[in-house]
Amino acid sequence: MLFYDCATAPSPRRARMFIAEKGLEIETRQISLADGAQLSPDFLAINPRATVPVLVTEGGQVLTENIAIAAYLEALHPEPPLMGSDPEEKAAVLMWNAIAETQGAQPVAEALRNGNPRMKGRALPGPTDYEQIPALAERGMQRVAAFFDLLEARLQDSPFLALERFTLADITAFVFVDFARVIRARIPEGNLATLTWFENVKARPSAAL
Amino acid sequence: MLFYDCATAPSPRRARMFIAEKGLEIETRQISLADGAQLSPDFLAINPRATVPVLVTEGGQVLTENIAIAAYLEALHPEPPLMGSDPEEKAAVLMWNAIAETQGAQPVAEALRNGNPRMKGRALPGPTDYEQIPALAERGMQRVAAFFDLLEARLQDSPFLALERFTLADITAFVFVDFARVIRARIPEGNLATLTWFENVKARPSAAL
Repeated sequence: MLFYDCATAPSPRRARMFIAEKGLEIETRQISLADGAQLSPDFLAINPRATVPVLVTEGGQVLTENIAIAAYLEALHPEPPLMGSDPEEKAAVLMWNAIAETQGAQPVAEALRNGNPRMKGRALPGPTDYEQIPALAERGMQRVAAFFDLLEARLQDSPFLALERFTLADITAFVFVDFARVIRARIPEGNLATLTWFENVKARPSAAL
Repeated sequence: MLFYDCATAPSPRRARMFIAEKGLEIETRQISLADGAQLSPDFLAINPRATVPVLVTEGGQVLTENIAIAAYLEALHPEPPLMGSDPEEKAAVLMWNAIAETQGAQPVAEALRNGNPRMKGRALPGPTDYEQIPALAERGMQRVAAFFDLLEARLQDSPFLALERFTLADITAFVFVDFARVIRARIPEGNLATLTWFENVKARPSAAL
């Protein structure tokens, strides 16, 4: 297998953490987003959507989405289970993972890409340049604040996002809560359940990679 | 089980098609988005994120995301498989489903919600009112055109989006290609592979519900 990563970016960090939690070692190549390497003809031939992570399987299948990479590795290497062990658990993991993506990852990305002068013309990942939309950066900041509320409400009821134990959904939420520092958004001081959860996840070896 | 649906909206249509493809009959309640029923206290007590579809399981678990509803029903009722039968297939289905969501469903929704005067103040689903961002409506239209290109390229290589057979990914893409009529976007006349695929999916009994 071959894993295309970018050490500084949040989306490939999700896959990197998942791989580490599974105890797998996969040959890795760095694609420097800072240098625009994802837009090189060589990489576009692998992933025309110009995003990382990408996992190329032993069979040569090219997986370009985090959820697909996770599901593939979970099916091949079921232990430890990171995506649930029965219908209820599987549903809970995918539900909270989707909530973390749409209510957390998406607004963080919108705030950064539409608000940071260095992302000018790169308001969306992918091969096409889109101009920044300042109102979308503002809305992203508002929605990140709402995501912190949502997380706190959930984590007051449950030690981890989807189940009583650590799962894929925690990886997604953790990576984007951590990455929110780039838009100067941090877990509010009073959100004690979220702060505890964050420190717990941050202490995992997979979070240090 | 109890299924909260809205007959006129694309997101619950995805779940409705999935349920029908599985041959299941589930007690259904209509939540009229046109009347704002998703914002009623009764419904917010079920789903504080104020969206449909929602599936309440026999065990009382409340599933609020399409991917979770699909995974739950697939795990309980594996036949016919709509989410792949081995690691490679499972990964392909989730990958193409995610691509259809981010490259198709999202721009269609952005174009509609930010461009239609009747959606004023409702630029995002959920309990919070967000103002429309006209530039996002424009960008949505551009991205829908790009999605039609992406679909055509894929469907020239494969009769269905993820596998050689119909899957969840086809449901997601079909529902939003069909719904794109509300923003006056249609499959371009020359996109013959997509037109063939669309007619094939449309002919399925599940598409008529």
